[in-house]
Amino acid sequence: VQGVALPVSGIRWGSASLGIRRPDRDDLAVMAIAEGSTSAVVFTRNRLPAAPVILAREHLALTPPRFLLVNSGNANAGTGALGMRDALTTCRALAMHGGCATEAVLPFSTGIIGEPLPVARITEALPRALEALSDDGWMAAARAIMTTDTVPKTSAVTVSIGGIPVTITGIAKGAGMIAPDMATLLAFVATDATVSKPVLGACLEHAAARTFNRITVDGDTSTNDACSLVATAHAPAPPITEPVGEAYQAFSSAVTEVCRTLAQAIVRDGEGATKFVTIEVGGCPSEGAALDIARAVANSPLVKTALFASDPNWGRILVAVGRAVSPDIDVERLTIHLNGLCVFRDGARAMGLTEEDARAAMAVPEIVIAIDLGSGRYATTVWTCDLSYDYVRINAEYRS
Amino acid sequence: VQGVALPVSGIRWGSASLGIRRPDRDDLAVMAIAEGSTSAVVFTRNRLPAAPVILAREHLALTPPRFLLVNSGNANAGTGALGMRDALTTCRALAMHGGCATEAVLPFSTGIIGEPLPVARITEALPRALEALSDDGWMAAARAIMTTDTVPKTSAVTVSIGGIPVTITGIAKGAGMIAPDMATLLAFVATDATVSKPVLGACLEHAAARTFNRITVDGDTSTNDACSLVATAHAPAPPITEPVGEAYQAFSSAVTEVCRTLAQAIVRDGEGATKFVTIEVGGCPSEGAALDIARAVANSPLVKTALFASDPNWGRILVAVGRAVSPDIDVERLTIHLNGLCVFRDGARAMGLTEEDARAAMAVPEIVIAIDLGSGRYATTVWTCDLSYDYVRINAEYRS
Repeated sequence: VQGVALPVSGIRWGSASLGIRRPDRDDLAVMAIAEGSTSAVVFTRNRLPAAPVILAREHLALTPPRFLLVNSGNANAGTGALGMRDALTTCRALAMHGGCATEAVLPFSTGIIGEPLPVARITEALPRALEALSDDGWMAAARAIMTTDTVPKTSAVTVSIGGIPVTITGIAKGAGMIAPDMATLLAFVATDATVSKPVLGACLEHAAARTFNRITVDGDTSTNDACSLVATAHAPAPPITEPVGEAYQAFSSAVTEVCRTLAQAIVRDGEGATKFVTIEVGGCPSEGAALDIARAVANSPLVKTALFASDPNWGRILVAVGRAVSPDIDVERLTIHLNGLCVFRDGARAMGLTEEDARAAMAVPEIVIAIDLGSGRYATTVWTCDLSYDYVRINAEYRS
Repeated sequence: VQGVALPVSGIRWGSASLGIRRPDRDDLAVMAIAEGSTSAVVFTRNRLPAAPVILAREHLALTPPRFLLVNSGNANAGTGALGMRDALTTCRALAMHGGCATEAVLPFSTGIIGEPLPVARITEALPRALEALSDDGWMAAARAIMTTDTVPKTSAVTVSIGGIPVTITGIAKGAGMIAPDMATLLAFVATDATVSKPVLGACLEHAAARTFNRITVDGDTSTNDACSLVATAHAPAPPITEPVGEAYQAFSSAVTEVCRTLAQAIVRDGEGATKFVTIEVGGCPSEGAALDIARAVANSPLVKTALFASDPNWGRILVAVGRAVSPDIDVERLTIHLNGLCVFRDGARAMGLTEEDARAAMAVPEIVIAIDLGSGRYATTVWTCDLSYDYVRINAEYRS
């Protein structure tokens, strides 16, 4: 459920203000993880990852993390060797205060690219963040990791494992990028269930592939994207150690649900977004083909500007489908529906379709574009938003 | 040279008005091709090609074309079986008037998607277009094929083949899409040189790959894109029958030059464009890698809005380079220059770079973004424009 943040036994968040950009609000958050927890993280696929991504990946391979250290306002990306040293310095400072190995701290940064990380400010603020650590710190942390998101994003569910309820709670920040260079998706999810590390990794990969990797605001992938999943084993539910069976399925579905809620909240809060758009592609010979088509439609500036205008412009959808590289398409079998209204069938505009009906179907803030190739049994869903004047204003005008 | 249209012996153009959208200007053009000419055409790679593309491809395989029939205002795309019949009807009418086989007519359409082709208007206007046929008809044809381009696009060069001058002239229409659904690149190039059909095809493939396929306004590929190259053999220059040797190289280079001029004119006239941007990617392990990176940068909405704002935002370029899928990148070897000014080197912002210098480098209408991976000898160039308020206005507001 969006906007809810249930405590997770074994997880505490503390936040503090670095006093740079926004003295009135926190921009540093620390997650303290109970000993005995397992953790998994998925990182950006961008080939030029930021320093904290490189370091977090190294640390994660060495030892189970005890702290996540998150700052907003500075991405520590495009900062070279200095950026690596700075990230390490902040991890070392937190490890000293927290009484753990430096490798047990994972750093995450979001904000401006190419500026040096404010290391001294971060190390000075760490004791305040640690003092603030609390089971109830999720919502404060959700606010602290925001850059120019307009709302904090949280989600939580409870699910029964072997008859025992466990909690899964997550927070995320998104693609609201009012200041140029700010573009990162960060998500932190935790549960009190007992889950082995390989199974936790499989759950997170599965969830991320179907949620965070199925949203697009503008088709760009940040240098800093990361999503973590921690299992504290504090609940008395039976352990999940194999990626099969009823308990695994229930847990994995619940993790995916929490991630989906967070991912959709990011799209709803996308830059300049006025529409929430679901693109459902079915009848494909493979899931890859469905995804290629869904992404081609979702990232088409022509489709996105038509959505902004509430214009039932199926011609632009047709062009984007035809541009997708994967499959050969039989146009006679292709159908396109806009919010349930068939606009394209039998190779041409649907018989009897009126401009009035089509416009009425689009004149709502949530739009489902359903595309069926009629050539297979694979399907996928992608979520996106429209392209408005405000997108250009937000990304062009701030520094002008 | 842009804006020039030299006559080509053996080629005549005639144009006429269909009297629908723009009674004040022509929107039908016919190219008459002398007997004994060879022709090659490259078509859109969109998997949902328009009816005229399907029919032109079929006709081209059967017999050497004697007429090209071009209408603007209606794309005859997304029109199903009716669209195929309509395209054939117009070819048949022109063949009857022109005294040739129906298969010797190639149809081309550009304009609104999903509306029936105005067949009666076209067949009525054909005699007027044929009466107007003239060696000097190139400029009038360049105007007739415009949809919402703001300037006609022509280019011509002369080149010496075996000591004899031959002429290469081309016209194009582009990606100015002020009315929604209008999105087609059409280009028609002709020469009086003598060139065998296979060599002509190779020349056109080579030229299109390096010119029309290296431009992007918004990353979408129309259902109707096509480019033709006709050789009339009217000049006394020696025939070119092999894709090797000095004469072939001279001719092929000249064709590429004509196409490059037309392609760049299309970008300069792109929707809402305020900047002409050249993206040069070098030091790559393969040409494919260079092209992936160049296209990722050229199509990034974040890079394009920064260009609109004259913002030297190398962080967004870095993100787009890292997103390109092909190569592994050694960030230490990567350099980025903006109009000759180094902004990124040794894994971070270039030493000594000032915001003032970077802004000054961007405050011009033509911008070169040079990206070098330092990891190979392959390079490529892509041309694009910025993303402005007018792009959104043009594509969102017209039908609202």
